[in-house]
Amino acid sequence: MSPHNDAPSPTGSFTTGFNRSFRPSGSETLMTGHLSVGEPHSPLSCSYSSTSLDSAPFHMARPLVPGVYVPTMCFFEEGTEDLDTVTIAHHAVRLARAGVTGLATQGSNGEAVHLTHSERQLVTATTRKALNESGFSHMPIIVGCGSQSTRETIQYCREGWEAGGDYALVLPPSYYAPLFAPSSETIIEFFHAVADASPIPIIIYNYPGAVNGMDLSSDIILQLAEHSNIVGVKLTCGNTGKLNRVAAAARKLSKKHDPDHPEFLVLAGSADFSIQSLVAGGHGILAGLANIAPKACIQTIELYKQGKVAESQTMQEVVSQGDWTAIQGGVVGVKAGLQSWMGYGGVGRSPLPRPSPDQAREWKEGFRELVMLEKSL
Amino acid sequence: MSPHNDAPSPTGSFTTGFNRSFRPSGSETLMTGHLSVGEPHSPLSCSYSSTSLDSAPFHMARPLVPGVYVPTMCFFEEGTEDLDTVTIAHHAVRLARAGVTGLATQGSNGEAVHLTHSERQLVTATTRKALNESGFSHMPIIVGCGSQSTRETIQYCREGWEAGGDYALVLPPSYYAPLFAPSSETIIEFFHAVADASPIPIIIYNYPGAVNGMDLSSDIILQLAEHSNIVGVKLTCGNTGKLNRVAAAARKLSKKHDPDHPEFLVLAGSADFSIQSLVAGGHGILAGLANIAPKACIQTIELYKQGKVAESQTMQEVVSQGDWTAIQGGVVGVKAGLQSWMGYGGVGRSPLPRPSPDQAREWKEGFRELVMLEKSL
Amino acid sequence: MSPHNDAPSPTGSFTTGFNRSFRPSGSETLMTGHLSVGEPHSPLSCSYSSTSLDSAPFHMARPLVPGVYVPTMCFFEEGTEDLDTVTIAHHAVRLARAGVTGLATQGSNGEAVHLTHSERQLVTATTRKALNESGFSHMPIIVGCGSQSTRETIQYCREGWEAGGDYALVLPPSYYAPLFAPSSETIIEFFHAVADASPIPIIIYNYPGAVNGMDLSSDIILQLAEHSNIVGVKLTCGNTGKLNRVAAAARKLSKKHDPDHPEFLVLAGSADFSIQSLVAGGHGILAGLANIAPKACIQTIELYKQGKVAESQTMQEVVSQGDWTAIQGGVVGVKAGLQSWMGYGGVGRSPLPRPSPDQAREWKEGFRELVMLEKSL
Amino acid sequence: MSPHNDAPSPTGSFTTGFNRSFRPSGSETLMTGHLSVGEPHSPLSCSYSSTSLDSAPFHMARPLVPGVYVPTMCFFEEGTEDLDTVTIAHHAVRLARAGVTGLATQGSNGEAVHLTHSERQLVTATTRKALNESGFSHMPIIVGCGSQSTRETIQYCREGWEAGGDYALVLPPSYYAPLFAPSSETIIEFFHAVADASPIPIIIYNYPGAVNGMDLSSDIILQLAEHSNIVGVKLTCGNTGKLNRVAAAARKLSKKHDPDHPEFLVLAGSADFSIQSLVAGGHGILAGLANIAPKACIQTIELYKQGKVAESQTMQEVVSQGDWTAIQGGVVGVKAGLQSWMGYGGVGRSPLPRPSPDQAREWKEGFRELVMLEKSL
Repeated sequence: MSPHNDAPSPTGSFTTGFNRSFRPSGSETLMTGHLSVGEPHSPLSCSYSSTSLDSAPFHMARPLVPGVYVPTMCFFEEGTEDLDTVTIAHHAVRLARAGVTGLATQGSNGEAVHLTHSERQLVTATTRKALNESGFSHMPIIVGCGSQSTRETIQYCREGWEAGGDYALVLPPSYYAPLFAPSSETIIEFFHAVADASPIPIIIYNYPGAVNGMDLSSDIILQLAEHSNIVGVKLTCGNTGKLNRVAAAARKLSKKHDPDHPEFLVLAGSADFSIQSLVAGGHGILAGLANIAPKACIQTIELYKQGKVAESQTMQEVVSQGDWTAIQGGVVGVKAGLQSWMGYGGVGRSPLPRPSPDQAREWKEGFRELVMLEKSL
Repeated sequence: MSPHNDAPSPTGSFTTGFNRSFRPSGSETLMTGHLSVGEPHSPLSCSYSSTSLDSAPFHMARPLVPGVYVPTMCFFEEGTEDLDTVTIAHHAVRLARAGVTGLATQGSNGEAVHLTHSERQLVTATTRKALNESGFSHMPIIVGCGSQSTRETIQYCREGWEAGGDYALVLPPSYYAPLFAPSSETIIEFFHAVADASPIPIIIYNYPGAVNGMDLSSDIILQLAEHSNIVGVKLTCGNTGKLNRVAAAARKLSKKHDPDHPEFLVLAGSADFSIQSLVAGGHGILAGLANIAPKACIQTIELYKQGKVAESQTMQEVVSQGDWTAIQGGVVGVKAGLQSWMGYGGVGRSPLPRPSPDQAREWKEGFRELVMLEKSL
Repeated sequence: MSPHNDAPSPTGSFTTGFNRSFRPSGSETLMTGHLSVGEPHSPLSCSYSSTSLDSAPFHMARPLVPGVYVPTMCFFEEGTEDLDTVTIAHHAVRLARAGVTGLATQGSNGEAVHLTHSERQLVTATTRKALNESGFSHMPIIVGCGSQSTRETIQYCREGWEAGGDYALVLPPSYYAPLFAPSSETIIEFFHAVADASPIPIIIYNYPGAVNGMDLSSDIILQLAEHSNIVGVKLTCGNTGKLNRVAAAARKLSKKHDPDHPEFLVLAGSADFSIQSLVAGGHGILAGLANIAPKACIQTIELYKQGKVAESQTMQEVVSQGDWTAIQGGVVGVKAGLQSWMGYGGVGRSPLPRPSPDQAREWKEGFRELVMLEKSL
Repeated sequence: MSPHNDAPSPTGSFTTGFNRSFRPSGSETLMTGHLSVGEPHSPLSCSYSSTSLDSAPFHMARPLVPGVYVPTMCFFEEGTEDLDTVTIAHHAVRLARAGVTGLATQGSNGEAVHLTHSERQLVTATTRKALNESGFSHMPIIVGCGSQSTRETIQYCREGWEAGGDYALVLPPSYYAPLFAPSSETIIEFFHAVADASPIPIIIYNYPGAVNGMDLSSDIILQLAEHSNIVGVKLTCGNTGKLNRVAAAARKLSKKHDPDHPEFLVLAGSADFSIQSLVAGGHGILAGLANIAPKACIQTIELYKQGKVAESQTMQEVVSQGDWTAIQGGVVGVKAGLQSWMGYGGVGRSPLPRPSPDQAREWKEGFRELVMLEKSL
């Protein structure tokens, strides 16, 4: 049952009670001041902010630690394409029970670009509720908050926090990139403004393929890492040389500023370079393949950390082969894989094409070896 | 004064009374059915649809004719970045009085990607009201409605119509383009679904630079032109060979289907190829430069149509040189030009950089020759 | 019969006697000094330069005037892929008799990247000889001379001149573009160095698709136009706004420097924007479609120049439709069209694929309307 | 002293005596038959082939084993830009003495695109001679042989072999890529034709940045790996997920075909992902940074292989930081680094810009930490 139709209050109930008592660090800009009034665009934040900021329960801290994170897929009902919150909840719990470290809503796999503000909040709130009710209230949720304008990005960060998110994953804006100031000055300003105003810490998302080719260099990432409210980076560019530079310099940053400052978390964006990223100093993955094979992804990394390198390499090979199917198929192929192997998944929102029976069979076969491994763990 | 804060009803008043009595052509999909209930995401459509569909006044038809259309810039208040509806209204009336054929809200120049759903409606409604109150109630408004999902695109079309828009300008979705079905099958399905459900006719927007390089061929455009609710194309790709093919074949289409079917309108997306597009069979322009120099853009085309080709060529050269400044400066440069030459304009929403005084001087100079021409007309 | 095998002297005979008595304008660099000794890499230039520089007949001037130029295709013998000089000669004469203004060897259509230095000279020399022997000794030949290094580009210019070429068409280097100095400084230096040393004047070739996206702006082109040995530009970018700016400014250049300095020639790179480029101030085309339909290309432009605009527009539409086939098919499709309609053409050098019988039929049909028009002229 | 001027015979002496007695495997095509006659374009192959094929000394086999390979830079004399064979020889011996496994001439770092056929042979021959005369006659040389046409690629392979090369590194052709047959059919045919005709085994070079974005998938690479004369791949795409897939499947290939068939060698194209590629199953690197710091590159890998992972990671971080300078500076920056730290290097051939003294100082500093490490080994 999807209560996201024109009735704010039922959905609103999902978002209350998760995160309270926010004292924004850094300066509050006029934009932030404006935001605290609430944006009529999001009934959820409207209903929330008018009642909760003053009567705030304590804020549960969920640290961002090394491990396997999953950018969860989003599920829709057949026909209407409305959010299928039952499946969203089921999927989150399945992944939590498999042992993942955290979940990320509204990543690329989560069809963020197909969701409205309130739908995004409903997904995150549904996920938070399902985790809490299954004994995983300590599990952090990362929320995709990137947007083309600084104000809307900050808006997504607030809404994500209200809905139960702990961290915001932020792509750089790119639509007007040719007009940006040189030497990434505009990009730095953007991330600083967002980090200054966001109630939840920021994870930089470097994914050139999603932003017209814009590739943040290790220099830019490390400059941003100095901000106290920017706590990590997800590298989907596959460049483990850059990952090596970022991880090395980030480690030194922590000694430089504050001994208790947690390490800047460096996550690899795909399962097919898991152990490669670990040997390069990375802290884990935030990878779509874990929607299908969370245990295999986790175990590959565990074996490596335990020093069982040969075993981890053997498992990495199966994971990389399965990831090739996931990379080629994207949302379409992974949903087909989920549907055929786990009995749920459905399809992506239009205009994403629906696989034909033959195509669905191909996607299924492409994941066979990986799923057999997953089932054995 | 910007009434877009958390109070739906005041802004809602702008949108009532413009377009009524919609009988959707083609099939109504479940998505459309869902939409008629209203999306809580847009209080404006909420408040509107619950009252208006049944008690519907007549729908004023504003035909889409050849001429000069302007993708209007959007204006924001200093500091808050809130919509500056006074300037939005003033600008619309200035352009109407200059003699343009129509306006387009939420184009690339209109910073569509920086606006929320309700802000978009406020811009369109403010524009409609200003035109009506200045004696331009016959002037059509085109509304930018492109989105990554079919359902949100349809949503924008409905909201645009409710706010007073007459036509929807639609970019193809591109985020998941690598997963789309080959031979543009997915793109065709997308445009058909939108055209089936939209209360206002669709203009295809071909702008590869804004959609990760996706370039709709003349074949695709002509196939889409066969749909009765797809009535034109804006070509920002600058390819007057393609424009020639599209204009030629579109002309034959009208004889094929229905003698009274208005010609499929082919608009050039930049003022620097105005007369080039006319000699190739185009019907005018939808170009950002007209925000600064509407009369020069109009006169260039008028002279050509009157057979005064040499005079039109002379004027085209001044327009092309001014357009070079506009192309390089984009929203940033054109706003600086407006501000320095016409006394209003402000700056774009963050993250767009603010020009330094030196940069602002450069933009001003880059438009000098064009503005001198404009003032002489 | 293709005498390009291991015997330099027979081929060498084709290149003697065409262009003599070169006094290089500007400074002779050490590179040029080195070049005058001859590069063992090209037996043709070896054999030529050791005998001819001192005993130099007069240099026949062939002015570069507005009109239709053809970047000729290169023809190969079946099986061996050796140069088919008989067909190369036949094709050149057919085009000359159709009334074209000039030919260009080693353009993109001419598979320049598939030819060795000596093969390039053989193509140009064969073309020169065929034209001379058919009464077209006044017809200029443009030679494609672009390369990644300045010295090899200068080498190609010399070799082109020795083989009978009158002008050099030069793409900017692009392989190490990321390392080039900003503000196109490196590109400007490159073109200046080449223009200083080349015995034949330079035509700039702007074709971003062939050079990793590098697009020379109107500013750069106009700066280069000030060099006395840079006499024109071919714009294959299809941007008639840029063409308009370049043509306008180039016209003013001539009054600025020297009243007798011929106009900087601005050529459109595709037949589908012929009249569009003319109304924008262009001087004609250098277009691959003219390999198939030279008369149609010429007549389209002639009608426009005679003021018969409606007739030129009608013909332009047929030309643009045929050009769409040529654009899609490139070397492969155009050769298939030539073969099926004119009885010669063959295929491109490997790795270019050979069309299957079905594909060949498609290419044939795609040119039908255009060829019917051509035959009627 | 650079004997590449118009006198073929002195240079020819360098190429005799290295590789003889070639029995081409697979079919000899007409193209190969034609090539055995020799191409007048290359006096070196002319002079060689006319005398050597029949009176052929034995062919020394130099196996391609895991390790550190260096794509050597090419050196030019100040002013003339002629090849500086003294420095070329000196540099090769310095790298050999540092302990590298092999050298590669005419890689991207070797300014292949700036060299003529005979210059390429001179570089390879000079390198071979210097290695032989310093006690490194067993060290294999890989020669860059990619070209746009199949015939010229085969030509480069023959010339490389004649000049003393043992393996050919081949980029896929890309100029006419839009015309190639789908599913990489054209690419597969190209590599098969080259592998059939080349006297030296082929290493596939996957470097999308150099070939207009063409990225060979693991599927294509593995299909090509089945050819007995295709023996490895250099991955400069940085994608260690793909490297993992290729290395895993290639290992299985050897058991499939022939137990004595040497492993398909998988080399990483940059030093900043050395140990990452090893843990993923790679066999070493072919990386430009080793021109400056061969011992650091070697030692990083040695420590990892000895199980001293933490030490290898520490060294990898210094190497990655130095590689960042090399990546940004390319040929220009690395030559500046060589010049300032090792006293030789010069500059690249025009149009590559010469660094200003300030820029040269920046490049020097960018390599300081790495060079200090290098000197300590």
